[in-house]
Amino acid sequence: MTRIELAKKGIITDEIKEVANEEGIEPEDLSKSIAEGKAVIARNILRNIKPLGIGKGLRTKINANIGTSTDKTDIEEELKKLDIAIKYGADAVMDLSTGGPLKQMRQKVLKHSSVSVGTVPIYEAAVKAIEKYNSPVKMTVDDIFNVIEEHAQDGVDFITVHCGVTMKTVEMLKSRERVLPIVSRGGSILADWICYHGKENPLYEYFDRLLEIAKKYDLTLSLGDGLRPGCLADATDQFQILELITIGKLKDIAVSNGVQCIIEGPGHLPLNHIKVNIKLQKSICKEAPFYVLGPLVTDCAMGYDHIAAAIGGALAGYFGADFLCYVTPSEHIRLPDINDVKEGVIASRIAAHAADIAKGYKKALDKDNRMAQARRNFNWQEQIMLSFDSEKVLSMRKERPPIKDEEVCSMCGEFCAIKISRKAVE
Amino acid sequence: MTRIELAKKGIITDEIKEVANEEGIEPEDLSKSIAEGKAVIARNILRNIKPLGIGKGLRTKINANIGTSTDKTDIEEELKKLDIAIKYGADAVMDLSTGGPLKQMRQKVLKHSSVSVGTVPIYEAAVKAIEKYNSPVKMTVDDIFNVIEEHAQDGVDFITVHCGVTMKTVEMLKSRERVLPIVSRGGSILADWICYHGKENPLYEYFDRLLEIAKKYDLTLSLGDGLRPGCLADATDQFQILELITIGKLKDIAVSNGVQCIIEGPGHLPLNHIKVNIKLQKSICKEAPFYVLGPLVTDCAMGYDHIAAAIGGALAGYFGADFLCYVTPSEHIRLPDINDVKEGVIASRIAAHAADIAKGYKKALDKDNRMAQARRNFNWQEQIMLSFDSEKVLSMRKERPPIKDEEVCSMCGEFCAIKISRKAVE
Repeated sequence: MTRIELAKKGIITDEIKEVANEEGIEPEDLSKSIAEGKAVIARNILRNIKPLGIGKGLRTKINANIGTSTDKTDIEEELKKLDIAIKYGADAVMDLSTGGPLKQMRQKVLKHSSVSVGTVPIYEAAVKAIEKYNSPVKMTVDDIFNVIEEHAQDGVDFITVHCGVTMKTVEMLKSRERVLPIVSRGGSILADWICYHGKENPLYEYFDRLLEIAKKYDLTLSLGDGLRPGCLADATDQFQILELITIGKLKDIAVSNGVQCIIEGPGHLPLNHIKVNIKLQKSICKEAPFYVLGPLVTDCAMGYDHIAAAIGGALAGYFGADFLCYVTPSEHIRLPDINDVKEGVIASRIAAHAADIAKGYKKALDKDNRMAQARRNFNWQEQIMLSFDSEKVLSMRKERPPIKDEEVCSMCGEFCAIKISRKAVE
Repeated sequence: MTRIELAKKGIITDEIKEVANEEGIEPEDLSKSIAEGKAVIARNILRNIKPLGIGKGLRTKINANIGTSTDKTDIEEELKKLDIAIKYGADAVMDLSTGGPLKQMRQKVLKHSSVSVGTVPIYEAAVKAIEKYNSPVKMTVDDIFNVIEEHAQDGVDFITVHCGVTMKTVEMLKSRERVLPIVSRGGSILADWICYHGKENPLYEYFDRLLEIAKKYDLTLSLGDGLRPGCLADATDQFQILELITIGKLKDIAVSNGVQCIIEGPGHLPLNHIKVNIKLQKSICKEAPFYVLGPLVTDCAMGYDHIAAAIGGALAGYFGADFLCYVTPSEHIRLPDINDVKEGVIASRIAAHAADIAKGYKKALDKDNRMAQARRNFNWQEQIMLSFDSEKVLSMRKERPPIKDEEVCSMCGEFCAIKISRKAVE
């Protein structure tokens, strides 16, 4: 039986207890959320890692994308990215490799990763189709599902499947109402396939085949937003919302068949669209976990898109998004390097933490209260320990230390407001 | 006559026309806002710089703090910070120096700066009191106002004055209801002064003297929030709100006397407090320009406080804050270095820009639309030009260039979604 099937029967597994305990909630509540498709535990039955809970009542989680591209294929570097992503707090990683030996890369990531691993199997299907037929559009329906089965067999914990890119929406895109028709790699590959074959998206038409594979491994489906807006001008448009409605329906089918789903969301959204996007997803998808890719609140933050995404991600999380996909400073420019991954993870951690505070998540509030007490008491060791990047804080402080008084910092020196005011009023 | 007096008479000056023209609004509307205290132009009559409009209907502005401390006194470095802050888009800078020859530093900043310059005169009053009396609390009322006059005479465009730290609130702080009683340097110096002398804050008691000086130079008063919360636990508490009410009243007195004011705000605020804080300020202070210091949405982002502040600043700007004070990665750790200033300014620019987009500010929307078109057309030159840090984008792209196709980037290579989808659907 799958997790959903067990939860529907009211069976509280050790895994449920483990996740609930760490989150500080009741196992029964978590089990109920899983049964209703409002929370998932993204772990393949073949994997022996800490279970990852995502969804209702749980801490906001973050994902870091790694992986080679056709233009940069360095597996060792990607594994270093994996290490640094986990070190700085990624709750999951996605191996989005499209260059070099993909299976080898995936297996190495699965072996090295102590956190849940996601993939986008359509990438490998496209790469294999180029090798086999010299063109990605020539892949067959079986080619696609064979790759998906292979990913599940390898132990992948969750896969992105762009089931909502349909013949209808692709036809509609031809109206040229969008500035950027599709900015999702998987979405564009499937749109191209649909146009070439004049046939429906196999991931939509044969959704039952997907469910069969997913059930076997208790694989979580991340229903991808192939039509997410790629610029503010396209935000919250009909294409995006039609796709959301489609994948919302598929989610219901999946959950009633015992398969866990999360819903992927935008993308590029102006600040004033974020609340409505989250509320819409929660309504249409009946509180299914929401996995947002950013969102980026401006198109112009190249080199600093991790900051644009932290702004959007924090707000999205506050309004109810459950899972934030990080964005690195390299977004829109190049394949990220190791430092970009670190910067992206930390920015996303800050966003998720700020969201959790605003949502009233107790552990997040406690952390900030401890930091405030440490500041009050001039306890630098504790402040450094509570920081998201202790090494950076320590080295920054050492570079420009206080001169006369170890309790203060070189910003205010003898004019430390905390020191002066405590002396005055306490 | 001061700007407010001219505006009340309906006289549209060239300065008003210049600001209105750049902002894309009607001069009459700007003049009305200035007359009502809802917008200011922060420029000393002695200064010959581009006038800085802040407030209703205007683009969200950002300020960068520079200045020496008692623990780090390098005027040349501070001038380099000034240059880099302006290069990356600071609309104003504040010289917060407390170490070394303060007058010399201030005059150099005023000479070098092409943007409005603000100061906090109470710092210099405290430093002089240490020299003169060996203790900052021993400064006299005249000492304080003499320094303020000197700053105005030097050409300072706006000054922070912590008029809202009163005997009453300082007495109340003794209840120890706050984790961090005061985190404002100016606020703590004045609280200490009040406790030592058992007398009212001179900036409150002799507010008329402040107005006299301000009128002479058309100096803008930034009514400081000496009682801003310094941690999330203290956010939106009675001390903060009582001070806001006090400075709101003083603002009314100032405006009716022809003196421009802006209101300073928090500080540390959880995401879910930001909207109410902005709406409260706009209501209590009758739409006076709001200058927020961050706000920081978590206490724990040491080393990355520019990101925590960008999250808070973007949201504050969207809800109506007019002026964002940047925060650097060095906040809470040390005096910032030159790179910290750059990082802080860019993060704040992104926040202000995201806010302007959400507010529907046309120039901001146009910029993003141009970026989206440039992406659509694979026009890298235009994308780089539109970025907040073109040099960084260019060098990042060069470090990991695309291999086969100059139009794409090394993230997606031949799987560029924009390329594939445009081929498929257009």
